[in-house]
Amino acid sequence: MSSGKKFPDWTEDSPKKGSYRSIFKWGAPDKYKHPNHRLYAMMKDVFQMTDDDFKVKQKEGNEPVRVNQPIQLKPDQIDVFANIVGHENVQFDDYSRVKFASGKTMEETLALRNQQPGPVADVVVHPRHKKDVQDSVAYCNEQKIPIYVYGGGSSVTLGLTPVKGGITLVMSTHMNKVIEFNEINQTITVESGMMGPDYEKALNQAPEIFKAKRRYTCGHFPQSFEYSSVGGWIVTLGSGQQSSYYGDAYDLVLSQEYVTPVGTFKTHHYPATATGPKVNDIMKGSEGCYGILVSATLKIFRYMPENCRKFSFIFPNWENTLDAAREISQAEFGMPSVFRISDPEETDVGLKLYGIEGTVIDQMMRLRGFKPMARCLFIGQADGHQEYANLVKNQVKTICGKYNAMYLTGFPVKNWEHGRFTDPYMREDLQDYGIMIDTLETGVTWDVLPKLHQAVRQFVKSRPKTICMTHASHFYPQGTNLYFIFIAKLNDIKMYKDFQNGIIEHIAKHGGSLSHHHGVGKMIAPWMESHLGKEQMDVLRALKHHFDPNNIMNPGGTMALDV
Amino acid sequence: MSSGKKFPDWTEDSPKKGSYRSIFKWGAPDKYKHPNHRLYAMMKDVFQMTDDDFKVKQKEGNEPVRVNQPIQLKPDQIDVFANIVGHENVQFDDYSRVKFASGKTMEETLALRNQQPGPVADVVVHPRHKKDVQDSVAYCNEQKIPIYVYGGGSSVTLGLTPVKGGITLVMSTHMNKVIEFNEINQTITVESGMMGPDYEKALNQAPEIFKAKRRYTCGHFPQSFEYSSVGGWIVTLGSGQQSSYYGDAYDLVLSQEYVTPVGTFKTHHYPATATGPKVNDIMKGSEGCYGILVSATLKIFRYMPENCRKFSFIFPNWENTLDAAREISQAEFGMPSVFRISDPEETDVGLKLYGIEGTVIDQMMRLRGFKPMARCLFIGQADGHQEYANLVKNQVKTICGKYNAMYLTGFPVKNWEHGRFTDPYMREDLQDYGIMIDTLETGVTWDVLPKLHQAVRQFVKSRPKTICMTHASHFYPQGTNLYFIFIAKLNDIKMYKDFQNGIIEHIAKHGGSLSHHHGVGKMIAPWMESHLGKEQMDVLRALKHHFDPNNIMNPGGTMALDV
Repeated sequence: MSSGKKFPDWTEDSPKKGSYRSIFKWGAPDKYKHPNHRLYAMMKDVFQMTDDDFKVKQKEGNEPVRVNQPIQLKPDQIDVFANIVGHENVQFDDYSRVKFASGKTMEETLALRNQQPGPVADVVVHPRHKKDVQDSVAYCNEQKIPIYVYGGGSSVTLGLTPVKGGITLVMSTHMNKVIEFNEINQTITVESGMMGPDYEKALNQAPEIFKAKRRYTCGHFPQSFEYSSVGGWIVTLGSGQQSSYYGDAYDLVLSQEYVTPVGTFKTHHYPATATGPKVNDIMKGSEGCYGILVSATLKIFRYMPENCRKFSFIFPNWENTLDAAREISQAEFGMPSVFRISDPEETDVGLKLYGIEGTVIDQMMRLRGFKPMARCLFIGQADGHQEYANLVKNQVKTICGKYNAMYLTGFPVKNWEHGRFTDPYMREDLQDYGIMIDTLETGVTWDVLPKLHQAVRQFVKSRPKTICMTHASHFYPQGTNLYFIFIAKLNDIKMYKDFQNGIIEHIAKHGGSLSHHHGVGKMIAPWMESHLGKEQMDVLRALKHHFDPNNIMNPGGTMALDV
Repeated sequence: MSSGKKFPDWTEDSPKKGSYRSIFKWGAPDKYKHPNHRLYAMMKDVFQMTDDDFKVKQKEGNEPVRVNQPIQLKPDQIDVFANIVGHENVQFDDYSRVKFASGKTMEETLALRNQQPGPVADVVVHPRHKKDVQDSVAYCNEQKIPIYVYGGGSSVTLGLTPVKGGITLVMSTHMNKVIEFNEINQTITVESGMMGPDYEKALNQAPEIFKAKRRYTCGHFPQSFEYSSVGGWIVTLGSGQQSSYYGDAYDLVLSQEYVTPVGTFKTHHYPATATGPKVNDIMKGSEGCYGILVSATLKIFRYMPENCRKFSFIFPNWENTLDAAREISQAEFGMPSVFRISDPEETDVGLKLYGIEGTVIDQMMRLRGFKPMARCLFIGQADGHQEYANLVKNQVKTICGKYNAMYLTGFPVKNWEHGRFTDPYMREDLQDYGIMIDTLETGVTWDVLPKLHQAVRQFVKSRPKTICMTHASHFYPQGTNLYFIFIAKLNDIKMYKDFQNGIIEHIAKHGGSLSHHHGVGKMIAPWMESHLGKEQMDVLRALKHHFDPNNIMNPGGTMALDV
């Protein structure tokens, strides 16, 4: 509800039903998170804006969704889908076509605010079970109808764009159930469309739901947790915010079942096997190009929130922070689950965001010489067995002390935790006033990290009035990721794309992976061949040709498999 | 040297140069390990043999190696290989052809003792570097000449058998060097033919060799460690005896370079990446069927033997042992590195082998009611940071106590450790008197383990006078492996194969993987299609077709890719 008192008049009303805004708005329709007054002051300062610039909102996307793209499928083809899944599970109205064609890239959001939606599928199909998927895929293969897949809709790589029309299968509408819970093996088998919160809730409530002896956790909490599906995590190779302990999605998946144009198969769920190349692993990250993931068996972990230990530190500079992080990752005493270091620019924003600026902690930091634009924040959390969590916390403290860090208690972690899934809500507020916020990320080994970080920052900062925040939040003994958040006053798609391309090129040039956990989609695809090399792309294309000889699975440039 | 005093007169002389025995004998020519008197007494007892049966040795394989298989390659073709690698690196004498065609299966050993070697390559080629491999593969592809690859020669799956003739590339002769050591990333890049001990030694001596700050360890110690190559570990998906902490070979490999008929490529060594299906992982376990691994970058670990904690326990029965092992694997306090539980039959043999039978420990066990053929031995070791190793040991002790185990100190572990690479040497002694000892193994989830164990034992024990020892030694939260060792008075190849096939069928039927860490080769291949299903085999075959359109890479049934 709009109060009328606050300034700026950030939007709090739910988007209008049927509007563009209702599609691009992050998260729950009735939820919002506004920039706090410190962030607001910073925006005005950096972008040389005044309160006047925050009086009139721009392109809010309140208009009803309209599509100009005619339906290419013939009525009798649409009837076939209706017969497969039931008439109530087929949609071809403008709104549904745009909604299930849209992910959460800045590019898509800008287009929707401009009332210029990108390509849409002809028909949206909501399968009820595996058989519906099999029948749909078989029919599409026979008729050469393109198939796109929609899970939670949080793709930030143009992974959902139905560039060739056809149909979009929405997995989360019906295919969102637990198939089997196995406490002996500590595994759960679920349909791929199950959403993060439902999945975690089922595991937390295992005694009540499955008569289990213990409570469990999935261990996978990406920022998109609330609006992403288990299947989406797997086919895009996602990572959760506690991956340094629990592992990436790739590590969590024991077995999967896929429906492909050349057949349906289910991999074995052995904890390990030496029977040749692992088809189970080949399918992970295939982003709907090889087949449709219908179910998966995943590792689960004991839910022991009572053992959780939180800690945070401030370091005098980025070099010490990196050295400490590497030392922690290689010292073999275990790993924190939350493990997140921020560079100086992000640290300063983070101290505002997590409510530390202006507190006693802030005063102490300044007194002890931890200077703005030099100091770096490290927040962490240890999970697992109580003794293990204690050990990890103690050892982290020892190492951080060695690198002249000051202990900041668990307070900043709690504040970070509070906003861990809701920070993206601020995107709409900023964009209403012409400020865009977006991210790119990469996987790096320790040795290339400092130069890559510097090079990307240099490029981003060469653009006037641009904020560039960086953190690393997924750690391995051999390296980590770098996650770049850039904020600029910019709302021209062409300018935005040029800017984004420049960052991707700097990442690739300085030895970073094209993506650590966002996936490829159609956005990163143009760099795939030069990144992996022709020989490796040919392997991915050979698999594509095998699974999908008619090129109906997520066609039109995803992962550069058909361009 | 033969002493003349001992009985039986176990062989201690090095095998005759050029003899069959010099090929099939396990390990170093001048090393041996005899069954101790307790094992000897047990053999006589179980097989109803007397000292008289150990007076005359059978088929020792002392004859010079002879081959009846004519060389099919033309002299000018052989010349091409000589020109590529140098004349001194090409061999086609009988001995070399048999030596580099032989692995360590019981089947091969029996055949060699019978002076009936299996198929051999026409020519043995020892490449000096990647370029030699590239030129050899290119020429073979052009001329459709089969290529087999030999690393350390310890395959127990008929992985090396050159059933179609052609050439065998021996990787370990020259391609055994360190390419790059990276202390920042904690990685090392080596040529694939580097042997286990050289590899570990280079890491242990990192300060002296690479001017490193610390010493390192590879963490991978399969029983075949001394006679296996780094490349062999990777392409067969091996596991070391400390895998429960360090991971399997699959987990240790960051990147690889392969020479294939369709080109050479090197994967990136990112700690994690989300750029589609991971070609790096697709190649692992490809057993020479897709290409030739020429180098790999692997994770390394800090070498901290001073932190090592050893422990062992005796459990009253198998059920309690399994429950405790599962509890340890799922409790999230970390994992022991050595983690090995033996079933009652193996426990009784182990107590003999590790020198515990008849000691004070044995007396105490009996006094406290741990009965032969019921009690189960657990030996373990914790590695890593000192505090971590202490934590793991303490928690393991607590859990074992909960399941009524008695602590047996670190003594049995030390004795096991002493023989960890040398136990296979006993095979020759036993076989000299007509007793065969062999193994099969499987990966299992916890829920199928008890029944599978029981079923395989029942089958093995249905054969009169047969020893069946079982242990699990690679642990995961979701399950473990089962490793079956069977000993029988048997030296007929046909009878042996029937027996072996029966065991494999029981493993497959009861929900075990066809192999946990031995690989597939040509031995397990006949079960691949029914095990994985046609759809998954088709994926492996599509990759085969892509990489090797002329079917020259390890052809003739390996992994059932060309049958």
